[in-house]
Formats: sequence, C-alpha cells, structure tokens
Amino acid sequence: VSEARKPTVGDLGEFPLIARLQRRFDRKAEGVVRGIGDDTAVLRPRAGWVLLATTDVTVEDIHFRRATIPPDVLGRRALAVNLSDIASMGGEPKWALVSLGLPSDLPVEYVDQLAAGLTEAADQFGAAIVGGNLATSPDRITIDVTLLGEVEPGRALYRNGARPGDRVLVTGFLGDSAAGFEILQGSLHIPGSVGDDLVGRHLSPTPRVEAGRAIAKSGGASAMIDLSDGLASDLGHILEESRVGAVVDANHIPLSNALREAAGAIGRHPLDWATRGGEDYELLLTAPPRSVASVIDAVRAVGVAITEIGEITATNEEWLIRPDGMRVPLRGTLWHHFSTP
Amino acid sequence: VSEARKPTVGDLGEFPLIARLQRRFDRKAEGVVRGIGDDTAVLRPRAGWVLLATTDVTVEDIHFRRATIPPDVLGRRALAVNLSDIASMGGEPKWALVSLGLPSDLPVEYVDQLAAGLTEAADQFGAAIVGGNLATSPDRITIDVTLLGEVEPGRALYRNGARPGDRVLVTGFLGDSAAGFEILQGSLHIPGSVGDDLVGRHLSPTPRVEAGRAIAKSGGASAMIDLSDGLASDLGHILEESRVGAVVDANHIPLSNALREAAGAIGRHPLDWATRGGEDYELLLTAPPRSVASVIDAVRAVGVAITEIGEITATNEEWLIRPDGMRVPLRGTLWHHFSTP
Repeated sequence: VSEARKPTVGDLGEFPLIARLQRRFDRKAEGVVRGIGDDTAVLRPRAGWVLLATTDVTVEDIHFRRATIPPDVLGRRALAVNLSDIASMGGEPKWALVSLGLPSDLPVEYVDQLAAGLTEAADQFGAAIVGGNLATSPDRITIDVTLLGEVEPGRALYRNGARPGDRVLVTGFLGDSAAGFEILQGSLHIPGSVGDDLVGRHLSPTPRVEAGRAIAKSGGASAMIDLSDGLASDLGHILEESRVGAVVDANHIPLSNALREAAGAIGRHPLDWATRGGEDYELLLTAPPRSVASVIDAVRAVGVAITEIGEITATNEEWLIRPDGMRVPLRGTLWHHFSTP
Repeated sequence: VSEARKPTVGDLGEFPLIARLQRRFDRKAEGVVRGIGDDTAVLRPRAGWVLLATTDVTVEDIHFRRATIPPDVLGRRALAVNLSDIASMGGEPKWALVSLGLPSDLPVEYVDQLAAGLTEAADQFGAAIVGGNLATSPDRITIDVTLLGEVEPGRALYRNGARPGDRVLVTGFLGDSAAGFEILQGSLHIPGSVGDDLVGRHLSPTPRVEAGRAIAKSGGASAMIDLSDGLASDLGHILEESRVGAVVDANHIPLSNALREAAGAIGRHPLDWATRGGEDYELLLTAPPRSVASVIDAVRAVGVAITEIGEITATNEEWLIRPDGMRVPLRGTLWHHFSTP
C-alpha cells in the first residue's frame, strides 16, 4: 500500500523532474560557464591541455538488475565506469553529461537516490555534472554518461605505445568483480564477509583516477588501458594496437585474499576470474624497464597497489606462464581445465 | 526466408561491430588528436573559444517507430536534434560521441544504414564522430548522441538574455513537424505530396546550424533557443529564464503552404500545430529593436527564412494575439476551440 503511494516519474512530469535534478546536480565547478538549464552546457577548457571524451551506458537487465543494486550505488557505478576511462588516459575528469531513460512508473525517490550516487562519484573525483537529458524509457532504466576530462598533451597514454622489452603492470587485484558478479547472479555461493567483499568489489568499483594521474605525471608509462573486459581481452587491445606480443606470469597476477578464499572454498582456480573476468576497472599499463621503478613509486605514493606481471615481446604471440611453468595462450585459457585434473 | 539469412548484430559480435563502425566513422577532422579506438577520444579545443556540450537520446517506440523511419533517416535525425542544440547557442558543431543500444536480432545492414545517416549528418555540418559505445539493448534501439561544439565566448546565446522591448523572431515555418507526426501515427490523413512534405519535415528536420552561426556572428540577438517542445513551451523557457513576458501575434507566425493546405482539408486551424506542436527544430530568438534588421539580414544571407512574431514585455504574462484580435494565454491555447465554432 505505501509503495503504491510513492510519487513516480510519470506523476511528477518531465520539467519538474529536470528542475529537481538540476538543483541536485548544481555545483560550483572549475571551467563551468553554464551548467544544466540551457540548450547546451558551456565550458571553458584549460589552455594548452587536450580534451578527453568518453561515453558508457548502463542498461537495466544487461548491466545490472534493479533487485541487486541500490539506486545510489548504481549511480556511483554508472559514473565510475566512465571515470575509469579518463583515468586510463592519465587524465583529470572534469564534466559529465547524464542521459537518463526512466520508466514512468519509477518512484521519484529512486531517481533522487540515483542522482545522489552520480553526484557523490562526481564530487569524489573532482568532476561536475553539467548537462543531460531525460527521456521516458518503455520498461528499463538506462543511464548513459558522457564524461569529459583533460590531460597535458604530452602525457596522454594510448593503447598503442607498448614496445618490446616494456614491462606489463597492473593496479589493485584482479578477478574480484567477476566472482562478485557470479555471486550476485546466484551461480556462485560464497557466504559471509568474503562473499560480501567480492560483491562489493563488483557493485562499487574504484576508478583509479589518482593512480592514472600519478602514472601520467611520472612520464614513465608507454601504454595504458582500463580493465573492463578482463586481463586477456584488454591486454589484447594494447598488443593489437601496439603490434607487439606479451608473456604474462600467472604467479604474479595480484589476487585478493577474498578471491583466494572463495576459490579455495569451491575448488576453483582464482586465475579463472583474474584473467578472463571483466569489470575490475583497474589500470593495465606498460613501461620501459628504466622507468618501471618510478611508475611503481608514483602509484604507491597515492596508496594504490601495483604489480609487475609480465613483459612485452616483439612477436605477435600472447603467452601466459601458468603456475606449473607451462606456456599457454593467454586468451582462451580455461583455468578450470587446469585446476580440476 | 531471405530475411532470416541476414547477419544480425548478435551474429557479428561486439568487437567486429565496433571495428566496422570505426571504419565507417573514421574521418580526418579538425581538432581530433585521436578518434574512435582508444579508451577516450582526444580532442584539441580551439584556443580562446568556449566548449558547448549537449546530449539527446532517441528511443524506439518513444521517439520513433522502426516501421515508419528508414535507418539512414533515423541516423540523420538522431544527430540533427543535437546539432540543433549547438545551433541554438550560436555554436559550430565539432565532435560527436554516439552510444548505441542495439537488440541482438537487429540486422547488421540496419546498423550500417543507421551509421551512414549519422555520418552524413555529421559531414554535412562539419562535425566528426569521434567516439561512442555499443551495448546490447533487450528489445529497443536507443541512440544517445553527445555533441560538442565551440563558440566565441562573447557570442554564446543563452535563454536568459531577453529584455523588455526586444522583438521575438523565428526561423523557417512552424507546425509542419507536428502535423507530419500525426500523419505518421495514423491519426491524420493527408494524401499526396502535401502529406509527404509534412512527414518529411518531421522525419528529416534541418538543424539551423548556419543560421545560428550567422545570428551569433551578427552580435544582434539577445537570447536564443531551438524549438523542440513547441513555440509556447520553448518561448516559455526564454521568458522564465529572462524573467520577462511576451506578446506574440498569431497573424505573424510563419506557416507553410503545406500546413495551410492540410489544415484547410480537415477544417482544423494551422496555428494549433504551429503554437503547440514540437520538433520543428527552428530557432526562436529575441533581439533589441536596433539590431533586428541586421539579424534578419544575416539569416536571410544564408538562405533561411526568418520572421518577427512578437515582442518581449516587462510583465511575466505570455499573451497570444489571435487572428480575431483577442488576447489569449500563449500556453494552453486550444486552437480547435477557436477554429471550430
């Protein structure tokens, strides 16, 4: 009964909802000449820097289920996946446009919490929501975020800069998000705080904005990408764009204690998630040997873990050295074939 | 049978489809350091100009029906509605990011044509598609376009610049799109070339980019907006933001011959569509009396019609002078009450 009384998007109507979101998103922010409320946002880019632009959509029933993520967490996550793209270029996030597709029976309260999450993530990483669009969506929520950022022209880190001999490094721990996703989907049962940790890592990824800036400013990296599709797939993008190969040592892939515990509990190899699972939103980068130490120092100085996991080669092969010492193709490696003899 | 053999989005897969679109969108363009293919686009804004950013989504079954618009026309339209926002600020369109939500059973051929339409509209107005995102959409096509533009800082035209005594002007002809929409929906039957003209005006609106630039460069306008929601609603935005009122003379609202003919054929008043109907994507602007002539000259010089339709007042009232000389509230005016005695 009380659910039925909650005012919905359809009850409120388009213009009152825009006005409501405008008040919520309105912030004093650097370089914003005009934010939400005119035909376009008007922004003042920093002289001499280049502009970064990325867009990433979050669609209900494809990227999330309403039952398994609270609206404020969903809002933070929708911005985080875009922040991660700016981070992977070494840039500073600046201005976001948020395009919401909302079913008309969605409670206004839900939209308020979604907006609160978006605002929170923007504030945390120094970005401002300066524009957007509202549309009725027939039955599913869609959140399309375009994020603009800036970077010094010589500091932008592309996918195509890796050279033979460069080392491969990664921030944080890999595979937690993929395991958390399986728990959320109900296909994996890991009770207690270990399960909660993994689910939290899936729902609330931390975009590595500070680490990305530290890496760019160190001047020591040669290529960078964020891990959205998984280590095998995303390293593949760097290798293809750079026309090089790589050998990754599985023993060095950073695994969290939670992932090790979950894997142990069900007799599965944690590297299954860590090499093929996506949505970690960690940074994967390459650096020539002479600058590896300075890159590592720069990332650790902002409190983020970073690990050397392999080396770029001149061939177009992609190998993974397994814990048993065997070389196997990096893409297509099936860990459960390895771990369950 | 031949329909069933057409390869679909799902058959092709995400990465091959991205590569295919990347080839299609790839263009040499001003200020593009890096287009599609990395984590973000990298762009070089023009020194001293401000950046304009807008986003507008086109959702199947909300903004269009697949049966009534060919995919290339849909692509052009999805970009046109954003081009119109840049035009209404007086800006030059520069860089677009296109986020597509595609059902997996959609033929690849459809996506090719959609992309061709997007590219065509971008090329026509000097913009380049520099990035985007692909996502599976459960059952409906969504096209979310973010468009960036640039304008000289002193030339940007906002909604809040209208002053009492300013004249109200509008480009083109109003109401055609709304009538065309009713024809498409099947609620209005206008056979022959008149009906085709009106439908064409709905499906293929012309964003007034050149007129917008001409108005901005003339320095003579005080406020501007594009007509997406209809004259009554969009003039309302200028009045609210500028804290002024207006009197519009219905006799001066520009009506196309096609609209007059359609209205005559069914005994309806053309001003019904022209004042309340949306999606004309014409420019609505205000200008102080001393600069009206120069603004009109500037717009006509680029081959676009422009008409003075009213005056800004110091009160917060919004009146329309009807053809019979009566003053009626601009919003909420019901023309069929007037025209069918």
